[in-house]
Amino acid sequence: MFLRGKEGKFMQFREINPSPRTLMTPGPVEADPRVLRAMSSHILGQFDPEFTALMNETMEMERQVFQTNNRQTYVVDTTSRGGLETVLTGAVCPGDKVLIPAFGRFGYLLAEILERCGAKITLLEREWGTVFDPQEIEDALKKDSYKVVACIHGETSTSMMQPLDELGEICEKYEALLIVDSVATLGGAEVKVDEWKLSACIAGTQKCISAPSGSALITYNQQVEDIVKARKRVEKGIRTADDIAGKLPGIPSNYLDLGQLEDYWSSRRLNHHTEATSMQYAVHEALRCILEESLEVRFARHNLNDKALVAGLRAMGLTIFGDLAHKMPVVTAINIPEGADGKVIRGMLLNEFGIEIATSFGPLDGKILRIGNMGYSSQKRNILILLGALEAVMLANGVKVPSGEAVAAALAVYEKEEK
Amino acid sequence: MFLRGKEGKFMQFREINPSPRTLMTPGPVEADPRVLRAMSSHILGQFDPEFTALMNETMEMERQVFQTNNRQTYVVDTTSRGGLETVLTGAVCPGDKVLIPAFGRFGYLLAEILERCGAKITLLEREWGTVFDPQEIEDALKKDSYKVVACIHGETSTSMMQPLDELGEICEKYEALLIVDSVATLGGAEVKVDEWKLSACIAGTQKCISAPSGSALITYNQQVEDIVKARKRVEKGIRTADDIAGKLPGIPSNYLDLGQLEDYWSSRRLNHHTEATSMQYAVHEALRCILEESLEVRFARHNLNDKALVAGLRAMGLTIFGDLAHKMPVVTAINIPEGADGKVIRGMLLNEFGIEIATSFGPLDGKILRIGNMGYSSQKRNILILLGALEAVMLANGVKVPSGEAVAAALAVYEKEEK
Repeated sequence: MFLRGKEGKFMQFREINPSPRTLMTPGPVEADPRVLRAMSSHILGQFDPEFTALMNETMEMERQVFQTNNRQTYVVDTTSRGGLETVLTGAVCPGDKVLIPAFGRFGYLLAEILERCGAKITLLEREWGTVFDPQEIEDALKKDSYKVVACIHGETSTSMMQPLDELGEICEKYEALLIVDSVATLGGAEVKVDEWKLSACIAGTQKCISAPSGSALITYNQQVEDIVKARKRVEKGIRTADDIAGKLPGIPSNYLDLGQLEDYWSSRRLNHHTEATSMQYAVHEALRCILEESLEVRFARHNLNDKALVAGLRAMGLTIFGDLAHKMPVVTAINIPEGADGKVIRGMLLNEFGIEIATSFGPLDGKILRIGNMGYSSQKRNILILLGALEAVMLANGVKVPSGEAVAAALAVYEKEEK
Repeated sequence: MFLRGKEGKFMQFREINPSPRTLMTPGPVEADPRVLRAMSSHILGQFDPEFTALMNETMEMERQVFQTNNRQTYVVDTTSRGGLETVLTGAVCPGDKVLIPAFGRFGYLLAEILERCGAKITLLEREWGTVFDPQEIEDALKKDSYKVVACIHGETSTSMMQPLDELGEICEKYEALLIVDSVATLGGAEVKVDEWKLSACIAGTQKCISAPSGSALITYNQQVEDIVKARKRVEKGIRTADDIAGKLPGIPSNYLDLGQLEDYWSSRRLNHHTEATSMQYAVHEALRCILEESLEVRFARHNLNDKALVAGLRAMGLTIFGDLAHKMPVVTAINIPEGADGKVIRGMLLNEFGIEIATSFGPLDGKILRIGNMGYSSQKRNILILLGALEAVMLANGVKVPSGEAVAAALAVYEKEEK
C-alpha cells in the first residue's frame, strides 16, 4: 500500500478506485453519471455572477420539482438530516407544541431534533408497517392545540408512505403548520407542496434526486418565512443600522440559521458560509436530469420498476412487509424467510454480485431486508439483475425458492406495461 | 435558454460550463484537478467496507496534515463554518467563560457562534492589521479564569497570522482549552496541533487544502473528548441499555453533535447522517496530494510565491496593508491607491482577465483588496499573470504605476530562490 511520491516520500494510500456497485438500498443510491461529470467542472468564486446565476437557476428548478411557487426554495450545505434540523429549528421556537405522527424510525428523529431545541413534543405512535388515517391526526388536533405537525412522507425504515393530500387541509383548519420530510420520496414519487398545502418540505440529494449525499433541498411558505423574519439576527461583523432584531427568540444555530441562509440566497447575497461549489453543480445537473425526463415520466418509471420488483419477489415465494396499499414505490421490504440470515444474504449480494441492499432498524432489525428503487438506480436492468442474484443467494443459503420464476415474472410485467 | 428535452418538454437551463477562472481570492480557490476527477468516481454505500476503509484512511492522512496523534480527527459534512460551530458547541457548555482575542472579522464569528450556545464571552480586541502579543492574552488569563480561549490562526479579513507556538503553553498554565480556527492556514502554512498544544483545531477544504467547499476537517484532544463523553446522548431509535446520558448538559444540535459524529466515525459506525460520498472522495484525494508533495515542500512553495507576489506589488508602487512581520503567507492585502475604486479594479480583473481577487469587510471595506495564494492556486504562473493583469488594470484606471516592473521583480525573486 505504500507508493513512492515525487519527493522520495512514501504515499500511504492509493487513489480512489471503487469496485463496481449496483446500489439498491434506500440511499445513498447511484448518482446519474451526468451529475458526477458536472462535479468535475472547475470551481467558481461564490459571488462570481456566473455562480450566483446558477444558484438562481437551481432555485427555479427546485420549485418545479417541489411543485411550489414558494419564494424560499433553496439548498442547505448539509446532508438531508441537517436540512431537517435547519427548517424545524427555524420554524419552531422553544416551548412550541409539536404533534408528530410517528410510524417508523425517522418520525423519532424529528422528535429528537425538536426536543433539543426546546419544543414540547406529542408523539402519536403506530405499529411499524402501517400509516395514519388522517382522522387520527385530526382527532389529536381536536384534543389539543399545536403550532406544528411534523411528519415523514416516505418512512424508509418501514417502506410505508403516509398519504398527505388531506393532511394540509386538516392542519390549516386547526391553525397548525405542516412540515414534511420528503427526503425519500422527492423525485421518485409525487410531492405536491402547494396543492397539498405543506408549510415546509425538506429533501436530500442521495435518494431519488440521484446526486451524492451532502446537500439538502428545502422549501417553505410565507407563514414560515414570517416566523423566520421575527427571529432574524444579522451577524455582528456584517450588521447594518437597518437590521433590527426580530420579536421572537433567535435561532439557536449560526450555521443552520434559516434567516442567514435566506439572506445568502437572496439578491442581498449577505455573506454567511462559503457555498459548496461542486455539490451545487451536482444539484443543478440532477434537477436538470429530472425536469428533462419530466416528473410524470419519472414517477411512471419508478412505479413500473416497483411493480416488476414486487412481482419478481412474490414469484420467488417471498412475502412483502407491511400494508401494501401504502407501500412506497421506491422502497420494498421483504420478510426474511425462516432459517435465512439477513446479514449473510446482504453480505453475499455485496461481495459476490456487487449489489447492495439494506438491513433495517429497531424492532425490524433482522426481520426484514429493504430494497431501494430510487433515481438513477431505478432501472429495468437493475431490477432484473437483482432478482436473479437474490434467487441464487437464497438457494445458496438453503432457502427453497423456485428457479427462474422471479426474473420471468418481472419480465412479464415489463412486457405487458411497456406496450 | 430553452432546450427541447426527450419528452418534448422544454429544458429551461443549460448544463454547467463555467468560464475559465484563476481564483486568487482567500477562498474558495481552485481545486486540484486530481480532486475534481476523484469526485467523478461512482457512489459507494456509506457502510460498504470499501467506503469505511476510505474514511479511516482519510483520518490517518488528516492526522499527518494537522501534525497530531489525536484519535478524534475526522470530517464534518458542513462548510468550515459548520465545523467551527460543531467543535465550539461540543466543547463549550452554556455558562462557560470563553476568552476570544479578536483581530478581525472571523474572531467576531467565533463570538457569534458561542453566544448562541449560551457561553459567556470576553472579547480582547485589537486594531485590524495587527496580532496579539502572547503576553496580552496571558494578562487576560491572569485577571479572570476561562474554560476556553478561542482564536483565529489566519485572519483572512486582515491577512494577519497570530503566532500560536507559545499560546498553548500559556493556556495550559491557566487550565484553559485552546481552540483554534486554522481554516485559512491548514495545508498552506505550518499548523502543529500537538507541538503547539492546541486542544482542538478546525479547517475547511476550500482554501489551502484545495478541494471544493462543503467539508470541514476537525481534530481534538483527549480533554475535549472527555467533555464530549460527559455530554453524550445516543439517539432514541438506536440507543442501547449501555448508552447512559452523560453528566454535563447535552449538545444543542443533533446534526452538529460531536458525540454522534464520533460514534459514526468510530468502529461502532453508529448511524447518524448519510456520509457525503463525493466530498469524502475529494477530501481523500486532496490529502493525498498534500502528503505526496510533503508539508515541507508545500509550505516552501506558498512562501516563495508569497515573496514573489509581494515583491511584484511593491515594484508596482503599491503598499501592503498591516503588520508585515505577521502577514499570512497565503493572503496579501494591498491598500487601494488613492483615486482608484476597488470594485472597478476587481470587476475588470474578473471580466477582462478571468482573475478573481477579493474585497474586504467592515472597517476595511473599500480600503484594501485581498489577494489569495492558496493551495493549487498558489502557482508561479498565477502570480505572474496576476501581476501583469493588475498592472494593466491600474493603468486603465488612471493609477500611475511603472510598466513592466512588477512581473520583472517577481521573476527576479523566482530566479534567485529557485537556484
